Amino acid sequence: MMSYQDIKEQAYEANMQLPKLNLVLFTFGNVSAADQTKGVFAIKPSGVPYEQLTVDKMVVVDFDSNIIEGNLRPSSDTKTHAVLYKNWKEISGIVHTHSTYATSWAQAQLPIPIYGTTHADHLTTDIPCAPPMADEMIKGNYEYETGFQIINHFAALGLSYKEVEMILVGNHAPFTWGKTADKAVYNSAVLEYTAQMALLTQQINPNAPRLKDSLIKKHYDRKHGVDAYYGQE
Amino acid sequence: MMSYQDIKEQAYEANMQLPKLNLVLFTFGNVSAADQTKGVFAIKPSGVPYEQLTVDKMVVVDFDSNIIEGNLRPSSDTKTHAVLYKNWKEISGIVHTHSTYATSWAQAQLPIPIYGTTHADHLTTDIPCAPPMADEMIKGNYEYETGFQIINHFAALGLSYKEVEMILVGNHAPFTWGKTADKAVYNSAVLEYTAQMALLTQQINPNAPRLKDSLIKKHYDRKHGVDAYYGQE
Amino acid sequence: MMSYQDIKEQAYEANMQLPKLNLVLFTFGNVSAADQTKGVFAIKPSGVPYEQLTVDKMVVVDFDSNIIEGNLRPSSDTKTHAVLYKNWKEISGIVHTHSTYATSWAQAQLPIPIYGTTHADHLTTDIPCAPPMADEMIKGNYEYETGFQIINHFAALGLSYKEVEMILVGNHAPFTWGKTADKAVYNSAVLEYTAQMALLTQQINPNAPRLKDSLIKKHYDRKHGVDAYYGQE
Amino acid sequence: MMSYQDIKEQAYEANMQLPKLNLVLFTFGNVSAADQTKGVFAIKPSGVPYEQLTVDKMVVVDFDSNIIEGNLRPSSDTKTHAVLYKNWKEISGIVHTHSTYATSWAQAQLPIPIYGTTHADHLTTDIPCAPPMADEMIKGNYEYETGFQIINHFAALGLSYKEVEMILVGNHAPFTWGKTADKAVYNSAVLEYTAQMALLTQQINPNAPRLKDSLIKKHYDRKHGVDAYYGQE
Repeated sequence: MMSYQDIKEQAYEANMQLPKLNLVLFTFGNVSAADQTKGVFAIKPSGVPYEQLTVDKMVVVDFDSNIIEGNLRPSSDTKTHAVLYKNWKEISGIVHTHSTYATSWAQAQLPIPIYGTTHADHLTTDIPCAPPMADEMIKGNYEYETGFQIINHFAALGLSYKEVEMILVGNHAPFTWGKTADKAVYNSAVLEYTAQMALLTQQINPNAPRLKDSLIKKHYDRKHGVDAYYGQE
Repeated sequence: MMSYQDIKEQAYEANMQLPKLNLVLFTFGNVSAADQTKGVFAIKPSGVPYEQLTVDKMVVVDFDSNIIEGNLRPSSDTKTHAVLYKNWKEISGIVHTHSTYATSWAQAQLPIPIYGTTHADHLTTDIPCAPPMADEMIKGNYEYETGFQIINHFAALGLSYKEVEMILVGNHAPFTWGKTADKAVYNSAVLEYTAQMALLTQQINPNAPRLKDSLIKKHYDRKHGVDAYYGQE
Repeated sequence: MMSYQDIKEQAYEANMQLPKLNLVLFTFGNVSAADQTKGVFAIKPSGVPYEQLTVDKMVVVDFDSNIIEGNLRPSSDTKTHAVLYKNWKEISGIVHTHSTYATSWAQAQLPIPIYGTTHADHLTTDIPCAPPMADEMIKGNYEYETGFQIINHFAALGLSYKEVEMILVGNHAPFTWGKTADKAVYNSAVLEYTAQMALLTQQINPNAPRLKDSLIKKHYDRKHGVDAYYGQE
Repeated sequence: MMSYQDIKEQAYEANMQLPKLNLVLFTFGNVSAADQTKGVFAIKPSGVPYEQLTVDKMVVVDFDSNIIEGNLRPSSDTKTHAVLYKNWKEISGIVHTHSTYATSWAQAQLPIPIYGTTHADHLTTDIPCAPPMADEMIKGNYEYETGFQIINHFAALGLSYKEVEMILVGNHAPFTWGKTADKAVYNSAVLEYTAQMALLTQQINPNAPRLKDSLIKKHYDRKHGVDAYYGQE
């Protein structure tokens, strides 16, 4: 059992950041932390209030959504997490929230245009919005299919999950991911902030132009390029 | 006297959640907790600041609005609560607030369209908005008639109070209810959150489509259907 | 000196409520508390941060704006307060803030329409907006003239300062008043809340109708009429 | 080494105000404090979370962006700060944030119109917005050129950096400055507040007029003119 302690602690700590960052009302969110070498992840139990969470309540699940350890029912979104971990081998953290502004863009069924350097510091494209799923997929294995809806939309747009670590699922809400659960939470907060500023930008100037290519490249590269000079690493 | 201690404690605890959830300014809200078998409910005293509330200050009232226990005047909205408890036998908690976004929709006299899964997780229809009452009802037994305005609007729309636990009263503000006072408070927070996101959705995309039936059904059923799999129960 | 202790304490306590109610950024606001029988009021010193305020720093001024007690310069808006106290004999508290939504309505130079019962619980008319002053008044005794701009606008609209305890000064910001400094602060918070909901109401429904007369009368009278039944008094 | 202690402490204290004033998400901001006589400034290290900052982590840099003292990499915006200090000899504090409303105006590529006295209390013109830089400047020494983009835009508009202590850089975000780091932080908060109210003003009244000249002059002069009477100095 001790072998899963690490991912359970990571998942717990990352989940507890969601209310602090004002990204969730009640239990409307969940974070998981994966161990890709073991093919398992720890995830928040379904419907448990954040103030009652503990490390021990985290549920360990494999990439086919079988429960490996834990007495509670895992998040109802567990199958979406499993599909993403199984197909995207270089991520070890996933976050799902219904954060206010990002969810409103998802409900509007529109990608978030890249309007400024705050956005370009994190990704070089609009934040994608997958269309709502076909009725058969919804009626079937819904959360499992949600994972493929995300993967297929990335494929259709030619995006790399290593470069774009967030998506809106149309009519639903955002998912974000990253190399760690912490990074995935960070991405959720960045997405919410970017979503709010994009709406405000349109309200100030309905004809606001998208960020030009040279600025997109400059800001992304100074954080993520081979000659990155942001931060201490 | 001890026999009402339970509902007084429930009402007190539920009232104290309103300021924590940012649902009230000053005393602009009230919660009651009912004992349907005894035909009584405990409700916040009128105009008393939340920081001065205590369990002992809760007022116990019967379903005809007669005061049964307590030294203070009950909420000015007491008759509305009484009418709802008397007619809707399966609810034991009611909340009235003037929360910012829900009240703004009520002032706009429009139902809140169902735009996303956050909404569908809780109800399958638009959130109803009862029209303002006729002048004679307003001039007469106003708060009593407010209860019937709510009940009549549900009847006119063919809605069940067991499935839709919230309403906007046109030009006024929201009422929510539930099997417990806690659940009614939860519904007030969900309503406020949904009301904000619905406005934002329209601002992002004035042509945003309503959520399609398959998604409404899926999300509602996974929380409330016979095969519900959200939460731990 | 001890004879002014009461109003200095009232002014201090009321000023300290402004940051708690999120009505001020930095020092953008001031409250005074008057003793109408003595013809004096205590007011916040100019430009002193709230965290450095003490009862002893309050400045006592008469209704012709002469400093009676205190070592600090009084608020730059002191003359406006003095004019209002001198002419409106039944008020003993005044608040001036640059609170976000009320100030935005003042900048828009529009009165705030009465859209709902939250508004009607406190006044029966739109919240008035005085036009910007004539250039000569601005260049002359500006703050003194601001007082008369408020009084004259109330006269032009036929409003009573005893019934309507708030105004927007066009291009500038709100003033509120009341029988006590506490009541004036309460009115500032109600104004800010009403101002936000009025904008949201218009954004949800640009054709939202004003509240009808029967509801205005009902809600105002249940708090302020001869048969008022709101609260404990 | 002790000779830089003062500016390191000033920079540290000023940086720590940014999260308290809700002007930054994560590390999206930085403050520097300069000693113009020594030709050096202390600035936040790049990408270090505010909760991990200490006085000792501040980096001392000269006006040609050479590191003078400190073990960490300075803010990625250091060259912009250096250019401004080198050319504008009477400022000793600079702040850069991505605060929500000011950044949205920058993304909209529009100056913030002067709509009210809150704005005029601090400057007499619209808040300028420099256009995005030419591609060659972006691809070249980007942060260095950002400094000149600011200086050149001030020259083009005939503005004095001593009177207007803030600017939006189009598509990017705001910069503010002042005689001290504290004053520059104060200006960042004023800018954010003004930016929010300007958008709200336009939403309330799309035809809202700019503040008239007499009011602009009156409010600016009562805080900054030769006969200023705001505050205690």
